[in-house]
Amino acid sequence: MNLRDACVEAAREVIAQEGIERLSLRDVARRLGVSHQAPYRHFPTREHLLAEVMRRCYAQFAEHLQDRPSLSDPHADLHALGERYLGFALSHPLEYRLMFSTPWPQATEQAELTADANQAFDTLRHVMARVHGVKSPTPAVDLDALFVWSTMHGLAGILSANCTTHLTLSPTVHKKAVAHVMGLIERGLSDPTRQG
Amino acid sequence: MNLRDACVEAAREVIAQEGIERLSLRDVARRLGVSHQAPYRHFPTREHLLAEVMRRCYAQFAEHLQDRPSLSDPHADLHALGERYLGFALSHPLEYRLMFSTPWPQATEQAELTADANQAFDTLRHVMARVHGVKSPTPAVDLDALFVWSTMHGLAGILSANCTTHLTLSPTVHKKAVAHVMGLIERGLSDPTRQG
Repeated sequence: MNLRDACVEAAREVIAQEGIERLSLRDVARRLGVSHQAPYRHFPTREHLLAEVMRRCYAQFAEHLQDRPSLSDPHADLHALGERYLGFALSHPLEYRLMFSTPWPQATEQAELTADANQAFDTLRHVMARVHGVKSPTPAVDLDALFVWSTMHGLAGILSANCTTHLTLSPTVHKKAVAHVMGLIERGLSDPTRQG
Repeated sequence: MNLRDACVEAAREVIAQEGIERLSLRDVARRLGVSHQAPYRHFPTREHLLAEVMRRCYAQFAEHLQDRPSLSDPHADLHALGERYLGFALSHPLEYRLMFSTPWPQATEQAELTADANQAFDTLRHVMARVHGVKSPTPAVDLDALFVWSTMHGLAGILSANCTTHLTLSPTVHKKAVAHVMGLIERGLSDPTRQG
């Protein structure tokens, strides 16, 4: 592994073990057993390193979403995408938190971060365009995409929130929650009376 | 302010400024200018203090949800509750994160935490029971409540996520997002063809 990749890997370890507030280039150098100056060859500031850690999360997430069987029915494809989304959120909590619950770094590197974040969202937009029967995203497509994203993001959050397990809900409710929520999303989107 | 309340207040400051990983009874004592032993009179461990910080978040949140105009139409009430929910999430990000994105402390105090968390969720369950036209929550009510909670939780998350502002969405889409999502929730729930 080259030093650049090793710095990114060490930064993820610091964040996972000590929290994002503790991330510093000095600490990363110490973990890698290299001189304090070495990481600066690749990352001018801590914020640049954090931006690269986050960018790789978006890229990995986009790849995970895109890696699904090809389905000709757009509703079935949307369902499969929802399952890929939830699967990633629950199996990669650190990456997920870095993408969606962490303030973006104050770096000049936001262009790359923006590109990778958009690539992940575009996967959903394109499936939603197919659900709408249009070639490319319209505002109506984007609004529905935000609805689906909200609900999946929220479902991932409540499934992993400690408090959910302490609510007085029956085991049946816990067991049926994901299917019920995904069913309501699909029903909402396919309601023939709605506009747009 | 008594020492117990002062400890809770100081703990919130530590969490806000330095991150939850840095919270310790020693640090709280230092901030308050009291002896290292003083906080132990009220909180046997750091986990007990954290549990009390979190419990107060749930209690404050439940009170905020309950403090809304009385509306006889259950759908209008559900809408008002959604707005109260989002309002709290966006105006109290620290409290919100502590409730729903922070692992629960390993304390013996979970009974109180559980009671206050349930009180907040019960507000939603009871409105949803009225939407269903039943007196008290059934599994079908709880499943719909989880759907609404997921979507509101997700909407709060994506509205405050930095990445959302960097997506290539038109200003119209940003402006209409909340109303659109709330409209789809209500449409999904009121669809006459659905079971349960």
